This record gives sequence, structure tokens and C-alpha cells, in this order.
Amino acid sequence: MKANLLQLSIANGVANITLNNPPVNVLSGSLILALKQMLKELSDNNDVKVIVFDSANPDFFIAHVDINILEEREIFNQLQATAPEGFNLFQAVGEMLRDQPQVTIVKLKGIARGGGAEFVTAADMSFASLEKGKLAQCEALMGIIPGGGATQYLSEKMTRSRVLEVILGADLFDAATAERYGWINRALPDASLDTFVSQLAHNIAALPEGVLAKTKQVLSPVKNIAGFKAENDAWESLVFNPAVTEIMMHALQHGAQTVTGELKLEELLRKKEVGSKII
Amino acid sequence: MKANLLQLSIANGVANITLNNPPVNVLSGSLILALKQMLKELSDNNDVKVIVFDSANPDFFIAHVDINILEEREIFNQLQATAPEGFNLFQAVGEMLRDQPQVTIVKLKGIARGGGAEFVTAADMSFASLEKGKLAQCEALMGIIPGGGATQYLSEKMTRSRVLEVILGADLFDAATAERYGWINRALPDASLDTFVSQLAHNIAALPEGVLAKTKQVLSPVKNIAGFKAENDAWESLVFNPAVTEIMMHALQHGAQTVTGELKLEELLRKKEVGSKII
Amino acid sequence: MKANLLQLSIANGVANITLNNPPVNVLSGSLILALKQMLKELSDNNDVKVIVFDSANPDFFIAHVDINILEEREIFNQLQATAPEGFNLFQAVGEMLRDQPQVTIVKLKGIARGGGAEFVTAADMSFASLEKGKLAQCEALMGIIPGGGATQYLSEKMTRSRVLEVILGADLFDAATAERYGWINRALPDASLDTFVSQLAHNIAALPEGVLAKTKQVLSPVKNIAGFKAENDAWESLVFNPAVTEIMMHALQHGAQTVTGELKLEELLRKKEVGSKII
Repeated sequence: MKANLLQLSIANGVANITLNNPPVNVLSGSLILALKQMLKELSDNNDVKVIVFDSANPDFFIAHVDINILEEREIFNQLQATAPEGFNLFQAVGEMLRDQPQVTIVKLKGIARGGGAEFVTAADMSFASLEKGKLAQCEALMGIIPGGGATQYLSEKMTRSRVLEVILGADLFDAATAERYGWINRALPDASLDTFVSQLAHNIAALPEGVLAKTKQVLSPVKNIAGFKAENDAWESLVFNPAVTEIMMHALQHGAQTVTGELKLEELLRKKEVGSKII
Repeated sequence: MKANLLQLSIANGVANITLNNPPVNVLSGSLILALKQMLKELSDNNDVKVIVFDSANPDFFIAHVDINILEEREIFNQLQATAPEGFNLFQAVGEMLRDQPQVTIVKLKGIARGGGAEFVTAADMSFASLEKGKLAQCEALMGIIPGGGATQYLSEKMTRSRVLEVILGADLFDAATAERYGWINRALPDASLDTFVSQLAHNIAALPEGVLAKTKQVLSPVKNIAGFKAENDAWESLVFNPAVTEIMMHALQHGAQTVTGELKLEELLRKKEVGSKII
Repeated sequence: MKANLLQLSIANGVANITLNNPPVNVLSGSLILALKQMLKELSDNNDVKVIVFDSANPDFFIAHVDINILEEREIFNQLQATAPEGFNLFQAVGEMLRDQPQVTIVKLKGIARGGGAEFVTAADMSFASLEKGKLAQCEALMGIIPGGGATQYLSEKMTRSRVLEVILGADLFDAATAERYGWINRALPDASLDTFVSQLAHNIAALPEGVLAKTKQVLSPVKNIAGFKAENDAWESLVFNPAVTEIMMHALQHGAQTVTGELKLEELLRKKEVGSKII
């Protein structure tokens, strides 16, 4: 495992976890495993009250799940085997963020697509840069549906009409629209985002003993296991189609998982002209 | 039945259905029947992936249910008899839009009131002209409550406080407010609405095989039969009041179901001064 | 009991109740009792269709529950004893607003915190001055969680992510943000708020017989008794902590329940510098 996929700093009850998996922060098996281990350790640290996630990459929060994740077969199997009953390993990432005793906050400055968008949606709170934060469930363009909880988490946050638009339209949403749809807590001007999130995190960390735990307990989300299973079954029914492999391979050959390709991933997946060259 | 109540065109997997029931597109028994037949045929057409509804009338999408619908008794009885178990014939229109294998999208450029607003709300997605799209549940002004699913569909989309405002306030909502309330997906500048909806529809129609069906399956709305029944019972308890007939007749005599009257329907139903004449 | 805690006027089917408990409209036992008696009387008055609540104080709608409420022990016990099964006396205030046969509307011009914010959230509808309306669940800063229904009422209105932000961030929300979160129906320019609410209230009061009752019946909110109990249990587990008493006493000694202190209550509760003096 790469040693520095995650950078952790802790101050005044607030842990900051910076995701750092160049070049575009794909959600690889190694990254999921590192997150899982770090969150497990933090869950035993009573001094930490809030966990803020951000990215070392100004353009990407999490690109999406690593298209090559099956190459990390050992880690993949380990994650699958340790996922909670009723959830697949991707859904288990979102559940982990919600079950954490701390408050989990995403500070979104770049793009989060697919499993990265699900990470944002699952967190307890999320705040995005008005100028730079972007979200997409791009799975439909790959021939699958989201399989990491998006159908369930998005349905908690926005109308079914908007969930259908997000998943089937599969376009990149700017932060202002994401806020209007309820996808994130708020979009804030980039210049004030750091201060806002830091102030909020430290205010929460400074709350009198017991308030945070009791609030998370009373507001613990209903786990609609049947919904997660339906999502997983539908995802599994599509993901092994040869057409899906073909789309993924084509995408990898034409820039997916590189900075240039990921900045225009929708166009690339739709096999459109990008710049002057037909891909 | 009028032959051209509906205009159908199909291209690249997208069917466009234009409603055309002059002068104000009332939702008559004939129109419901024509829609039902056309949607039935389309449901067997695997090449069609998306259905976009618009109106031939620039001022009205659907005025509301035809006040004279009972005069089409044969059609009315036929629709009632073929409504799915637990739904009345008006609620069955909304359910039809949701149960369609294709994605149903409303492009709203004019006014949609009553059963027309319920049509918009029930569709899988809806996009409105910021300048021209308007929505109202006007039933309260007629002495009834909405009986075509609005109490259920609106409750999925907005807070109970806002549903109460929509139904009891019974005013015409502009598209921007409708978006903020979650009633529609989005309000877009009139100049960009056609392009936006067309692009979205064609993007969805171009998705790899299986994605659309699996997404609609996982996101199929819960059918709260008890809620639809409660709505229908309350509607039925009011609709036969003599006062309701009196309001309807007064409205018809003073301009309802004509362009001029429908542009100011709320004032007309409140029996207020319209222009210089007391109606 | 103070004689004039509530001012009532009735015209054309609309009752206006003005809250008047100087200096900052705390929600005292006496005020709750007076509200309960007045609403009971109004519930038997079939001529009244709508109840609008406003405040005699331009800066405060309801400051919050009176910190000294336990000093009114007799009233407190009476309220507790007469709360509906499964609800504590504070939750019973919100339930009373919802169970009222009339439509209850809050017109929010000043600050509503804690139990005052819960009053706003529980009402059938709420409209706020864009410039002057403010809402906060400030309980977390006092070492408790909201205990008057906020965890349940807010969860009906906004995403869990936003409820967590409201309760744990515990900051004062302006009316525009409250509208975007779904907390209130709408924020309106202060200059048009009175006219808007008055027009809406009178329109509703003028509806044909039966519409209002049937609408409230079909849209009666689900009473999630288990949720209210979980909230109450969590609240009770914290409220008797000595630290909570200490915070409350410190706050009272430094300006809570006075105009000056309440205008900056968050800073006061966080024990920050207010003006030039360390409190």
C-alpha cells in the first residue's frame, strides 16, 4: 500500500484527513482500506469529535472508484468479506462515514464522481466551493447504475425526479445546483469555504460533553437494507456485461484516470469529440 | 374522439407528445383516453426510451380537468373501470406516467392547474420555463381538494407546510418558486429550455442497454395506496356538494375554459373584479 | 399569570395572536398555558379558520424556553400532566399547533431560538422577514439537545445533513438560508410580509366549507411516537448534568433573557468576548 494516501492532522478535537492518491484521487482498494483503518483508529479516540475530509488535489476530491479495482484482488476480497451484513464493499464506505462516532464533514473543492460523489452524499455534512465543487453520478455512462449507495442516499436528500435526473442524466452538477437539489448542505464562495468549515468543525468539537453523541443517536439514519440490496442486485446485473468492460477499457485508453481525461469524463464516456480529436 | 388531440413524433429513441386540445388544453375524458392508448402503444416499443410531453398552446400546458367531463359519460365510465385497483381515474393518469417503462419528462411552458399540475408532478421529471411556466392546485377555490394524486405526489416533493400552502393558498406559482419548493426539477430560461430538455432526453435515450430499466426499477416510487384512498374519499365527500356545482357553473359562465378566463382563473373563482367588470 | 401575554383579534375568519412576554418573549410556563387555553377556546369557534401568530416585540418572536421555567413548578407540573401520551410538555406545544382544527401560520419578524424555533417549525406554515427573521436551535450550546420536537419536525423538512448542521452548529440562520433548507415556507421582503400573510390567511379563511378540514385531514402528519420518545430520552439524559445548570446560570448572569444578551446569545453561550468585555 502507498504510505501517504491519507494525511492526518488533529487539533482541538478536529481531525483533518486529506485524500492524496495522484493523479486524480481514484477510490482504489488501497485507499478504501487506508480510510477504513484510519477511521477505525479514530473511532477509539474520544478526543476527536469531528472529522473533515478534503483533497490534496485542487481539481479532484475523489475521481470515482478505480476502474482497475479488480486488480487489487486481495484487498478487494478483504473489503468484501468485512462489509457489514447486507451491504457491498462500496456501500460499506458510505455506511462507515455515517456510523463513525465523530461527525464526518466533506469539504468539496474539486470534482467528485461516482463512488466519490457517494462519499460526499453519505457523509454527515458536506460543504462545497461555489466555483470549484462539482458532483456527478457518472455510472450510467459506463453502462451500470451507481452501486455504492447513491440510489438510497440521494433519495433521502432530494426528490425522486431529481435523483432520476442525476443518475440518468449523469451530468456534472455545479455546487449551486447541488445545493438547490439538497445534495450538499451548502455551496459557499471558495474564498470563505475553509473558514466556514473550520469554524463549524471547531464549534462542534467544543460542544459540551454528550451533545454530539446523543444528537447522532437520535438522528441515526434508517438503514433500508432492502433498498441497498435492490441497488446492489441491479448493479451486479449490469456490471459484468461485456459492453461495460468495453466502455471502461475505451475510457482508460483515452484518458480516464488522468487529469486531462477526467476533466472531461462525460464527453469521453459519450465518445464525443474532445478538443480537435475524435476519441 | 377528436383525431389530433395528441401529436406524436419519434426520433433517436425520444418520443415527443404534444398536447393539443384547444382552446386551453383541458384534460378531458377524450384526452385521457388518447393518452392512455398512446402510452400503451409506446410501452411496447422498445426503441423508445424517453417520452417528452409539451403543449401546442403557448399559454397552457393543461388548463385542468375538463369541468364538463361528466358529459363524456361513456369514456368516463370506461376510464374508471380500467383504473388500477385502489386508484380513481384521475390518480390513474399520474400512475400511468410513473409506471411507463420509458422515462417521462414534462416540458412546461404555460400554465398547468389542477389535474394538469398533477400531471406535471407525477411525471418522472419536469422542467419549466422560468418566464412562462406556472403551476397551481386550484381545486380549493372550487370547493374540493385535489383528487388526482396531488396530496400524495406533492408530499413526496416538498414539506407538508408547503403542500398546505399550495393546496389551501391555491395560488398560481411561478416556476422559480416551484423549483425552490421541489415541485419541479428546475426552472430554466425560456430561451434554453428546449435545448436543455432535448439534450437530456437524447443523452438518456443513448445510455447503454439496461441502465434505464434498472434505474427506474430501483427508484420505483412506493405506492401508498392508503394515502390515495384517503385523498379520493375526501375528494368524493366534497365534489357532490351543490356549492361545488354552483362554483363550476359560475366559472363556466364567466370565462372558465376560455383563454381569457383561464389566464385569470384564480380571480374568476374568487369572484373578484377582473378588469373593469364584476364577474 | 400576567394578563396580557397574548393579544387576540379576530376578523373575517382569521384570528391573530400576538405574543407579548417582555422583554424578549421567553416561552414561559405561563405563556404556554395561556396559549393552550386560547387555542382550546378557538378550537371550538367554527368561525375561525386560520390563526396567525406574530410578536409584539420587533426583535424577538420567541427567545426560547424560559431558563427559569422550573420556578413555575405548579404550571410546569400541570402542563406535563396534560401533555398527550408519548409527548413531553414542550413537544406538546408543537403538537397542539398541528392538531388545531384551524390552519396555524407563523409570521416571523425577529429571532426564534430553541423552543421558539420549534414553535415555528411545528406550525402548519411559516413565513419570515428576509431582513429580520432568524432561527436557531441553540440547545447544543447549553449542553443539551432540542427537546421540544426539533429532531422530528426538522427531519420532516430538510435533509439529515442539514438537521445535523442546524442542531450541532447551533448558529443563527437567516431567513433566506432557512427557506433554502426547507425550514420555513418562504422568506419575503419585510415590506411585503404583512400583506402576503394577511392575503393568504384571508384567502384560506374564505375557502368554501369543508375544504380546509379535509385538506388538514388528508395531510395530517404521521406522529412518530418512537422518534419523539428517543428525543425526549436523549434530552432528559443531558438536562440534569451539573454542567448544563452551570452554563444556564452563567448565561443568565451575563445577559440571557435580556434584549442585549439575547441579540448575541450564541457568543454569550460560547463565553466569547462580546463588545469590549470578557463575559
